[in-house]
Amino acid sequence: MRCLIYNGTEPRVVTDRDEPDAAPGEAIIRPLLAGVCSTDLEICKGYMGYTGVLGHEFVGVVEAVCNNDDRDDSAGAAWLGRRVVGEINCVCGRCDMCTRGLGNHCRERTVLGIVNRDGCFAERFALPVANLHVVPDHVPDEHAVFTEPLAAACQITKQIDVHHGDTVTVLGDGRLGQLCAQVLALFSDHVTLVGKHAGKLAVAAARGIDTRLVADVRPAADRDLVVDCTASPSGLDMALRLVRPRGTIVLKTTVADAAPLNLAPIVIHEINLVGSRCGPFDVALDLLADRCVDVDPLITDRLPLADATTALRRAASPDHIKVLLTFD
Amino acid sequence: MRCLIYNGTEPRVVTDRDEPDAAPGEAIIRPLLAGVCSTDLEICKGYMGYTGVLGHEFVGVVEAVCNNDDRDDSAGAAWLGRRVVGEINCVCGRCDMCTRGLGNHCRERTVLGIVNRDGCFAERFALPVANLHVVPDHVPDEHAVFTEPLAAACQITKQIDVHHGDTVTVLGDGRLGQLCAQVLALFSDHVTLVGKHAGKLAVAAARGIDTRLVADVRPAADRDLVVDCTASPSGLDMALRLVRPRGTIVLKTTVADAAPLNLAPIVIHEINLVGSRCGPFDVALDLLADRCVDVDPLITDRLPLADATTALRRAASPDHIKVLLTFD
Repeated sequence: MRCLIYNGTEPRVVTDRDEPDAAPGEAIIRPLLAGVCSTDLEICKGYMGYTGVLGHEFVGVVEAVCNNDDRDDSAGAAWLGRRVVGEINCVCGRCDMCTRGLGNHCRERTVLGIVNRDGCFAERFALPVANLHVVPDHVPDEHAVFTEPLAAACQITKQIDVHHGDTVTVLGDGRLGQLCAQVLALFSDHVTLVGKHAGKLAVAAARGIDTRLVADVRPAADRDLVVDCTASPSGLDMALRLVRPRGTIVLKTTVADAAPLNLAPIVIHEINLVGSRCGPFDVALDLLADRCVDVDPLITDRLPLADATTALRRAASPDHIKVLLTFD
Repeated sequence: MRCLIYNGTEPRVVTDRDEPDAAPGEAIIRPLLAGVCSTDLEICKGYMGYTGVLGHEFVGVVEAVCNNDDRDDSAGAAWLGRRVVGEINCVCGRCDMCTRGLGNHCRERTVLGIVNRDGCFAERFALPVANLHVVPDHVPDEHAVFTEPLAAACQITKQIDVHHGDTVTVLGDGRLGQLCAQVLALFSDHVTLVGKHAGKLAVAAARGIDTRLVADVRPAADRDLVVDCTASPSGLDMALRLVRPRGTIVLKTTVADAAPLNLAPIVIHEINLVGSRCGPFDVALDLLADRCVDVDPLITDRLPLADATTALRRAASPDHIKVLLTFD
């Protein structure tokens, strides 16, 4: 089958990859749309040391299910043909994290297209049935494909309380920054999105979100919450100058490289720095179903899987926000 | 008068410094004992860009009070001759932080011996009366002088909840690490102090605290809470390997220099990193008065103010924990 693989050197499309096998409890999914994420780009720089099929954002159709031995066939059959999105962490269910209810941090987890599990930039891929969520009929594919990154944005409000009066700055006008700004604007009346690209900021401004070019920001250490979606080591430095004493910084993006950092301001100003990763799919699907967020203007390109390397390049360019892969 | 100053190049004892003036609302204090803190040592490496009289840990006697214009003389007179300890942040009372109840983060603050205010390694120094706490008669000077660093240790449990079942590691067997371990052992039954010095660890072990040489630690990402008191950039790196996913790291110590740091583990494991600085003096004084902590074995040397530069050198040596200055 055709897929986009990263072999440790560079990403490339191949056509001779074997079709995936479904382990017991797993479904075989045929993607309808997939989204390129900054994590995919970081993996191609060596992040996580991953090799294999890339991709973890998708909406797709269940084509087959391999039942667990201890379940009857009807459990799997109910999923056949359903349009689904899927959580990316595949968990053991037995380790200390799983039994604590922190399955996303399972010690033995594989992660779709990120850790020891082929991803969704492929004609077919496997994922546990337990990870799947049915997409409501009235949510189009172009919206459903945003469920995974939107859930990651929603995770912020699962980890910390955000109040209407809180002053919030989101750093980074890219894919995740746009979604975080939209989600946080549902909780706070004072959200500002800061970025480097007037065109991208205009997308958020059209949603009524206050925006600012980073060059125009005068940090005054007065923001209650700063969310770093820059995928750049400079993001935390700016966040530390924006956040008020005893305020909170949420780190949403990761970078492959270490960078020099002076942590003294975290201590002196007693900052709360919170790492934040994957989030609740049910909340994200509800937001999409209720049209509480507007993802259409974030889609800046669509390319077929055969052109996936071009899609990665475009996703890395400042002219693009979300680049989708199609599977026609 | 005699005092220890840092002039931007090196610390030295001088004898020709003018006696301090008390502004309205301030007291003139004659120290009985003062403690050398790692912050003093960092300042002598350029931290905070401070120059002036060093020192911020003391127990002393109020020798004079300059009343506010709007108060009668009796308010000040009540303090004369009292044995006191003092909070180090001197605040404006009017800025957004002060009005929010976060006076320790006052925008206009001076800090005793750290920011724009001569410190307590002097025959006399000034501090606002509002900062003073009377020391109970049965608390000896040798215990009271620990109030400031003990309050800093207590601040951890003001910022985060620590439960009896939580697994806690304190990194750093120095002054602050010892106090943090003792305080946290009042909240958790599973506190381990990790350090480089068998002799210092033995002090904590004698208190019934589990100890480990850092060379013997096998990080398993399973600790609920890790407190970094190493005053070293390597502390956070070790903390990130010790803490469990969704666990908490408290940064208690600051260093003057930036260091390379890869923040990806904070995001991937959704770590909560909390900066922590000054703490509640009332809580610390209660712990000392009730003998809930044992500071006597932490005192490894006493030197007169005239030998303060020697005291700094000894405080920087791995053979010492707390070095006190005397003022006889």
